[in-house]
Amino acid sequence: MRSNAGILAVGGLLAHSALAAPSAKNFIYIVPDGFGQASQTMARDYVSLIQNGGNPKAPVSIQLAADKMVIGNVRTQASDSLITDSAASATAFGCGVKTYNNAIAVDPNGEPVGSILEAAKLNGMRTGLVVTSTINHATPACYIAHVANRNSYEKIAEHEIGYGHPMGPSADILMGGGRCYFKPKSDPGSCRRDDVDLLSFAEEHGYYVMQNRSAFDTLKGGKGDIPLPFLGLFNDDQMMYEIDRSRQPEAEPSLLEMVQTALTALDRATSCKKKGYFLMIEASRIDHAGHASDPAAHLFDTIMYNDVMGFAREWIDAHPDTMLMSAADHECGGLTLHGFNPLPLGRASASTEALAKLFGEFKGSDAERRAYFVGEILPAYGLEGASDAEVNTLLAARNLGTEMGNLLASRAGVHFSTGDHTASDVTLFGYGAGENGRAIRSDMAGNWDNTQLPGYIERVLGVKMSDATAALRANGTSWVGKRDLNARSDDHIHGHGHSH
Amino acid sequence: MRSNAGILAVGGLLAHSALAAPSAKNFIYIVPDGFGQASQTMARDYVSLIQNGGNPKAPVSIQLAADKMVIGNVRTQASDSLITDSAASATAFGCGVKTYNNAIAVDPNGEPVGSILEAAKLNGMRTGLVVTSTINHATPACYIAHVANRNSYEKIAEHEIGYGHPMGPSADILMGGGRCYFKPKSDPGSCRRDDVDLLSFAEEHGYYVMQNRSAFDTLKGGKGDIPLPFLGLFNDDQMMYEIDRSRQPEAEPSLLEMVQTALTALDRATSCKKKGYFLMIEASRIDHAGHASDPAAHLFDTIMYNDVMGFAREWIDAHPDTMLMSAADHECGGLTLHGFNPLPLGRASASTEALAKLFGEFKGSDAERRAYFVGEILPAYGLEGASDAEVNTLLAARNLGTEMGNLLASRAGVHFSTGDHTASDVTLFGYGAGENGRAIRSDMAGNWDNTQLPGYIERVLGVKMSDATAALRANGTSWVGKRDLNARSDDHIHGHGHSH
Repeated sequence: MRSNAGILAVGGLLAHSALAAPSAKNFIYIVPDGFGQASQTMARDYVSLIQNGGNPKAPVSIQLAADKMVIGNVRTQASDSLITDSAASATAFGCGVKTYNNAIAVDPNGEPVGSILEAAKLNGMRTGLVVTSTINHATPACYIAHVANRNSYEKIAEHEIGYGHPMGPSADILMGGGRCYFKPKSDPGSCRRDDVDLLSFAEEHGYYVMQNRSAFDTLKGGKGDIPLPFLGLFNDDQMMYEIDRSRQPEAEPSLLEMVQTALTALDRATSCKKKGYFLMIEASRIDHAGHASDPAAHLFDTIMYNDVMGFAREWIDAHPDTMLMSAADHECGGLTLHGFNPLPLGRASASTEALAKLFGEFKGSDAERRAYFVGEILPAYGLEGASDAEVNTLLAARNLGTEMGNLLASRAGVHFSTGDHTASDVTLFGYGAGENGRAIRSDMAGNWDNTQLPGYIERVLGVKMSDATAALRANGTSWVGKRDLNARSDDHIHGHGHSH
Repeated sequence: MRSNAGILAVGGLLAHSALAAPSAKNFIYIVPDGFGQASQTMARDYVSLIQNGGNPKAPVSIQLAADKMVIGNVRTQASDSLITDSAASATAFGCGVKTYNNAIAVDPNGEPVGSILEAAKLNGMRTGLVVTSTINHATPACYIAHVANRNSYEKIAEHEIGYGHPMGPSADILMGGGRCYFKPKSDPGSCRRDDVDLLSFAEEHGYYVMQNRSAFDTLKGGKGDIPLPFLGLFNDDQMMYEIDRSRQPEAEPSLLEMVQTALTALDRATSCKKKGYFLMIEASRIDHAGHASDPAAHLFDTIMYNDVMGFAREWIDAHPDTMLMSAADHECGGLTLHGFNPLPLGRASASTEALAKLFGEFKGSDAERRAYFVGEILPAYGLEGASDAEVNTLLAARNLGTEMGNLLASRAGVHFSTGDHTASDVTLFGYGAGENGRAIRSDMAGNWDNTQLPGYIERVLGVKMSDATAALRANGTSWVGKRDLNARSDDHIHGHGHSH
């Protein structure tokens, strides 16, 4: 029974094929953080029901954009746990190194390891990071910062802009949230504990700095070159969930808008040059919605991820010297779908995070609070028909957001088994135009350890992460961030309450 | 927010590539029934911990056999539900037709549709079905029987052996459980309601009939040709879970042993001929263990599936005119893995089904029953340390097996969210030797509707399911099984209690 006949050791990257990797000038890597297999099924089935008039008894088989690019799946464990966090996982697929949970681009000994972005930069390419989390959150951090623990947000922000990083500024584009980490503590909008002024540092090093949507619109409205480098920080905390942002698009650009601007800028800067670009895009908050058990926020950030995947595919068809891979870092929430009908999720028009905050700010008597809750908060989450008993349970809940999320989830046959990550594999996507598409399917169709992924990008681009590692270690590693025991936890600003 | 930018219609099978499919003489299709993505992660991580000495804080990244053949994933919905059963799904991947839950190889109008096995037979190939469920269970049924509802077990058994089927006997090999459906009601071992004697019918039509392991051993022991056709029915009900069978291997052959014998027989019968074979193999009871929330039975049947996948891969390397695809029909159990350490699952040495039956047969006072439960039953399931409170809960449970399964699951960080199927996609595996391997990755890496899969086998083998459909309908369809309103439910014999 406990036979070993079916077990094979991990094969090398070339196990499948003796072919060389295809060659491309540019590479796009897209991370849907915390996106599991059921996330995609839920989004696809929701869209298909919207298309067919809402009859779950006669579903239509469709594909979303990401479905068109499936090529396999990915194993995600950390060096010290069967269940990874975003830091260990991003060190794996960003740098090719298996490490411990919480590590930001350092190996299990705490030594810095070069990322594929740093390798591209060393090779004269353009680079960018575009995310909807804080820009100094674990996933983007692992491409450009090196610290012992992900909670060192201030140090990570420094490295990201090149302050104290031995390679100096390595990203031509940085867009996301986390604005407060870039301001000195003297600034009322700061969340730093020191006087380091990273926005001024960025400007001194040639960055065009944007702190809001109107600056972004000015940038993207230009017809000529978009000046590189640039830094766009559109929120002090995480950027908004798409379900919230879409109600007030003037507040922040969407992930798709940021991606369109980033690719346009990178293309204009490199199209007449020999060297291309590497761009990492993260649909960061799929994960936060999983931690929060918010099925509606999870759904609409997953649809936005598919919109970005669809745009990237069209971009590659128009720019065939570009290739793409995409995989989540891990599943989040233990999402399963039974007794399943996702239509009720569409009745929500805001995240539980936003609604719980709104309700927390309401001042009034108990009766007024209840009336506000029943009259305003619940309908905004598609729960207008909640029974008195359900309202009582919600109002007594320790975590209102999670309770609301689970109530809507139960109406849709959507089930979160945990507020944490799970061990399941994640889906691997890959795309290239024409022959490159055939090549990436032939080379990379399969099941991979997450550390095996950047090796393919190295071969496609002709760059070496080991060169970046050597550059990082050339003059000692005292600059590497040590564990910051006094760092504030990730949820010090407000809202999402999870660091994973 | 509700953008359509990311949505693409279902592409044709050739969307990926203008290349013709590779050509092969033989095709093996393997169905791990009810096997979800988390099933494979659980099995892989269990095996890796056994290999590394059992330290979940220092996991080793390995692959099981199936991992080496991942090429994508599959959408599974039925024509009338977002969540499929095995019947609609097997009609999809066996016949290429989307139909309603419970349909056995009939379309939504109840008209029979030809399967890839019937198409192969019509084309002069050899064929086989090897399963661990009853042979007349939904998955094998859809390759060779045509009835309106899966509960028509007697009619399905008839069709399977060619009785009342317009093509006559179409399977050269049938192995699995369900023996009682092949005996006339006059036989004490029968579960039929009529006098039809399908074992005699089989012998009259040249089948070598085996009803137990010793007959199987006699068959497989021979050195010359293994006579075709043959019928092996090794249990009245489902065959045993591997966790139970491995304690008493003399009782039944394993799935791997049946597969070895089937492939040897098919190879000997065809190696000097122009026409090859089509073999469908089902690791049937992964699904039953999901319905039963039995993580240990689920684990060891999943490992057996991987053993079969590993054997099939080696077989293909030695017989490169053979290709393979494999995909589950659906996920079952809503399995998720958090707080996860699968090692405790290895302490179980029997299924909850077997242990609940054993306990049900015990006669004695309440005190004696409790002593037997604590002293014998719980240790056999790896629960020797159960607290008094846990024992009380178990003994009071309406479904003892499910409660025991969930208790062991909780110790392993394994979570079943339902006793039913879920909507998630399932993993697609494919393999060929050398150029065929490269071709199947290039052609079939991707996300597919389950109805799209047999079209690839058609092209590889050069057969047409439409020919089989025409043959089935040539002289009317009055022979097609109507819904049997008086049929006994699937759990009439004992034990598994689920029909899906």
